[in-house]
Amino acid sequence: MSPAEHPDDVTPPLQGAAAGWRLRMYTVIFEADTRAGRAFDLALIGLILASVAVVVLDSMAAVHARWGSVFTVLEWTFTLIFTVEYVARLSCVRQPLRYARSPFGIIDLVAVLPTYLAILVPGLHALIDVRVLRLLRLFRILKLGAYVAEFAMLGRALAASRRKILVFMSFVLMVVTIMGTLMYVVEGPAHGFTSIPVGVYWAITTMTTVGFGDITPKTDLGRVIASLMMLLGWGTLAVPTGIVSAEFTAQRMGRTPTTRTCHECLSEGHAPDARFCRDCGAPLPAWQNDHGHQAPASGRGGS
Amino acid sequence: MSPAEHPDDVTPPLQGAAAGWRLRMYTVIFEADTRAGRAFDLALIGLILASVAVVVLDSMAAVHARWGSVFTVLEWTFTLIFTVEYVARLSCVRQPLRYARSPFGIIDLVAVLPTYLAILVPGLHALIDVRVLRLLRLFRILKLGAYVAEFAMLGRALAASRRKILVFMSFVLMVVTIMGTLMYVVEGPAHGFTSIPVGVYWAITTMTTVGFGDITPKTDLGRVIASLMMLLGWGTLAVPTGIVSAEFTAQRMGRTPTTRTCHECLSEGHAPDARFCRDCGAPLPAWQNDHGHQAPASGRGGS
Amino acid sequence: MSPAEHPDDVTPPLQGAAAGWRLRMYTVIFEADTRAGRAFDLALIGLILASVAVVVLDSMAAVHARWGSVFTVLEWTFTLIFTVEYVARLSCVRQPLRYARSPFGIIDLVAVLPTYLAILVPGLHALIDVRVLRLLRLFRILKLGAYVAEFAMLGRALAASRRKILVFMSFVLMVVTIMGTLMYVVEGPAHGFTSIPVGVYWAITTMTTVGFGDITPKTDLGRVIASLMMLLGWGTLAVPTGIVSAEFTAQRMGRTPTTRTCHECLSEGHAPDARFCRDCGAPLPAWQNDHGHQAPASGRGGS
Amino acid sequence: MSPAEHPDDVTPPLQGAAAGWRLRMYTVIFEADTRAGRAFDLALIGLILASVAVVVLDSMAAVHARWGSVFTVLEWTFTLIFTVEYVARLSCVRQPLRYARSPFGIIDLVAVLPTYLAILVPGLHALIDVRVLRLLRLFRILKLGAYVAEFAMLGRALAASRRKILVFMSFVLMVVTIMGTLMYVVEGPAHGFTSIPVGVYWAITTMTTVGFGDITPKTDLGRVIASLMMLLGWGTLAVPTGIVSAEFTAQRMGRTPTTRTCHECLSEGHAPDARFCRDCGAPLPAWQNDHGHQAPASGRGGS
Repeated sequence: MSPAEHPDDVTPPLQGAAAGWRLRMYTVIFEADTRAGRAFDLALIGLILASVAVVVLDSMAAVHARWGSVFTVLEWTFTLIFTVEYVARLSCVRQPLRYARSPFGIIDLVAVLPTYLAILVPGLHALIDVRVLRLLRLFRILKLGAYVAEFAMLGRALAASRRKILVFMSFVLMVVTIMGTLMYVVEGPAHGFTSIPVGVYWAITTMTTVGFGDITPKTDLGRVIASLMMLLGWGTLAVPTGIVSAEFTAQRMGRTPTTRTCHECLSEGHAPDARFCRDCGAPLPAWQNDHGHQAPASGRGGS
Repeated sequence: MSPAEHPDDVTPPLQGAAAGWRLRMYTVIFEADTRAGRAFDLALIGLILASVAVVVLDSMAAVHARWGSVFTVLEWTFTLIFTVEYVARLSCVRQPLRYARSPFGIIDLVAVLPTYLAILVPGLHALIDVRVLRLLRLFRILKLGAYVAEFAMLGRALAASRRKILVFMSFVLMVVTIMGTLMYVVEGPAHGFTSIPVGVYWAITTMTTVGFGDITPKTDLGRVIASLMMLLGWGTLAVPTGIVSAEFTAQRMGRTPTTRTCHECLSEGHAPDARFCRDCGAPLPAWQNDHGHQAPASGRGGS
Repeated sequence: MSPAEHPDDVTPPLQGAAAGWRLRMYTVIFEADTRAGRAFDLALIGLILASVAVVVLDSMAAVHARWGSVFTVLEWTFTLIFTVEYVARLSCVRQPLRYARSPFGIIDLVAVLPTYLAILVPGLHALIDVRVLRLLRLFRILKLGAYVAEFAMLGRALAASRRKILVFMSFVLMVVTIMGTLMYVVEGPAHGFTSIPVGVYWAITTMTTVGFGDITPKTDLGRVIASLMMLLGWGTLAVPTGIVSAEFTAQRMGRTPTTRTCHECLSEGHAPDARFCRDCGAPLPAWQNDHGHQAPASGRGGS
Repeated sequence: MSPAEHPDDVTPPLQGAAAGWRLRMYTVIFEADTRAGRAFDLALIGLILASVAVVVLDSMAAVHARWGSVFTVLEWTFTLIFTVEYVARLSCVRQPLRYARSPFGIIDLVAVLPTYLAILVPGLHALIDVRVLRLLRLFRILKLGAYVAEFAMLGRALAASRRKILVFMSFVLMVVTIMGTLMYVVEGPAHGFTSIPVGVYWAITTMTTVGFGDITPKTDLGRVIASLMMLLGWGTLAVPTGIVSAEFTAQRMGRTPTTRTCHECLSEGHAPDARFCRDCGAPLPAWQNDHGHQAPASGRGGS
């Protein structure tokens, strides 16, 4: 099985003598149990990375001037290899259309299409900036996603928490919209806040503590509001971290030590101020912490 | 019940035949159990978002020049709808004054007032910047708060921790005030630190790691102090995170990582407080951690 | 007892009739049990904050020009009040010299000294920038520390972890020194990196994600090194946070669900792949997660 | 044993009368049990720090102009001392070649080599920037690594999590590559995004919330994409922190915060799984949380 296991889009071909070559191809392409399968995977990862590197280097004017023709040749080589791979994938699964419509199938198609488009539509260069074609070619990097099982796990974890994430993010959007508008009102276009969207953009740079500095408040009131936003954005990280650490350290240090034991039932972990065992009801011996201070004798506990 | 449940400010009208239309309206407006109630909620959320979008777009000079009149018409439509909604809310609760004074009641009023003020007070545009009116209209976004139960939960969580938050924030304020004044002394107005408040503003941008860059230290001593502040601000996040992670990973690893072995089936990784092997059911030998403490023989383990 | 309890530096006067007024004064100043004690504390906190506000406002040129004389009068009032308070404190503890040498005693002295120095040493204004005197007056804010018990707790927590903090910080200093020197070598004085300390300052702004932007890498290699530093600084926060969250969520979500119950002893929280109850040894029923996938039948568990 | 314990590269010399001086030297250099051993360690740490300070100060033009000759003398002194130390280390371990090839052995060699190279290869100053030599000398700081046991622990912790870290970092690299190319397409060379690598550099400064500001988006679409990246980078820290804190606080609060009350003594705040009141020993009634789930009747509670 490939590290991504078998998503529903990829079904092995029917078993049988007639499907011999297809099954062998399937084993190599989609599964990684055999030596050939693993070699194929490694080779493909290497080709994907090399192809992305070519796209990246080709965007640098100096490098393009010197190696441009070499890159074009390499680009065509990669495109041909990826086309062969795509056709091979389609031909050895049971339901080719299903694979072609799956996320990875679409990525595989986008990986080869731009170069063909440039040929088939001669005037394309004039219409679409070559930079866009570079971007489309760069999406090949997403083919790597199939090879890392943890990415699928990460995706599932995000999906599981998606409501919490949505609520949190919508709260953040509400705050930055209000604060951005406030700064737009206070500072005004004269100081760079030319419209509410610009104010929101500034509010996001400030609350996420990125702080580009291309737009900054100049008035005193603006700086006060900015300070509030900065403390809010940074505090959203610092306050929970501090509270959790304080609790964690307190537990560890022995605010609720693990050594306070009930003599009757031997259960542990009783609070410093508890007088009776919570599991059997027997009275607990008085507790002295490591500093020699006796816990208060009062009966009422609580945080 | 609406997702926000019934806050005390919203009490259903008295039950009875005479209150028939009021009760039906109450069910639609404040509750989301029926189809009509949910449709009303969704429609209102849509209107709020559309209204906010209009305010945002209207602030962009280019868009305003082109669509200004359309926006004015839309703005009046929204204001009328929100007015009708506000009056409906007031008329179907048992204590209208109580709702009007509640937070959501005030937000509903502020949502409609600016447009009426602009009419009733003709010279208002000259006195109050149209930008302020935009800000007031934007507060409609807070009406969304009633529809997300998690916001109420978030509010309660914050309220529960408010003393800790206040202490932490006052500590931060003390630090930035002292550090800001120190930089004001060291760098001086010549380098941008024109007064203590400006120094405090700079200290906040630095400690929260925002770092706009509009004011930066130029002297060597100033840069040393700045470095201390940066390490303090970033360390407030990094040090607890690191300590908690180290503890967490240590616990996970078992401090006696995977070496607790079942003598029957040789499987590893048993919990410190487990008494039977989870794979074969055989009893596990008592476990001693590396500090020489024997795990309790009772079934209840410690933290 | 005052919220800070009694530090060793503050010992109540001897009990006795002769010490009547001293004991009464002590009760008011150092303790907060009585109405007078609490009123004194509140009044003093108010005076400290007002005094700090005066120092801050006085540093703003526009405000100083207008209210300068008022501020001077207020400053003298505060100084006299704080002097009387200081003398009162000294006179009602058993060991005045001990209090005078304690941290809070020194703060109290620094709080009043600058204003007297300005009188006693006429040429001081010429020698020491008035800004320095403002800084010294601002240290009064530290008197507030005695009123917040949590600050003492915070101090103790930091002291407990101080070795970990020192090791972490020295590691960070090593990294920024090496990286700063590397950038000094790669970019050179031409691009702003005029010496190793400047490179270290830049490395700190980058690793702590502050990113002022006053110095930025211009060469390609410099930008690569900068990218590594940024990922290192941000990753120091993100990687542990992510790992701890992943573990936490995994536990919560039911990698060890809370619903898998042993039919014999009714204990819960068994691992998905456990086959025997860890508390009584009875066999556990097979478990199916919510995706319909059956846990593997193998006996070996482990992370 | 030295704090780093004995790595495999450092093996004590054979025991025996003939190896007397070697064993004594070994005890002093590599072990810290004796007074001489500890004194040696402290002296060496002091020398390393002093040597690094000299390199750092020498890079500052003003300081170099004034103290240059003193620094040269000091530099030679340090080099000679470190050479003697290196030779001593090599001569008192059993396998000198093994130590010379170990990480610390290489660091020791690099610590002394630059100064000798400058002598042996007269034209070196012309070929290699003196800045590079400074960098090489600065690597002496890594010799400190042997003296802090926690660094070794940190290294092991990182090694244990290395797959998780690699996966996370490769995910981040994929995101910044795609986003960087997207900005290169949207903003273009006119706004500073001259090539894909520059776009990736910008994407890293934005996602890690550093935000230098040397390159900023100017178009509306570019600012929208930038906002998404900022929220993604900051959210990667904030969302897990918030979720973990919420869970942690919920557990602490008991999910039924303080309302679980003992019927006998009316104390509150009992744990969800407690069966007896910790203050009076009376049995507690079974607890139902707000979702209608009854807590298990067994003594063992769920997670």
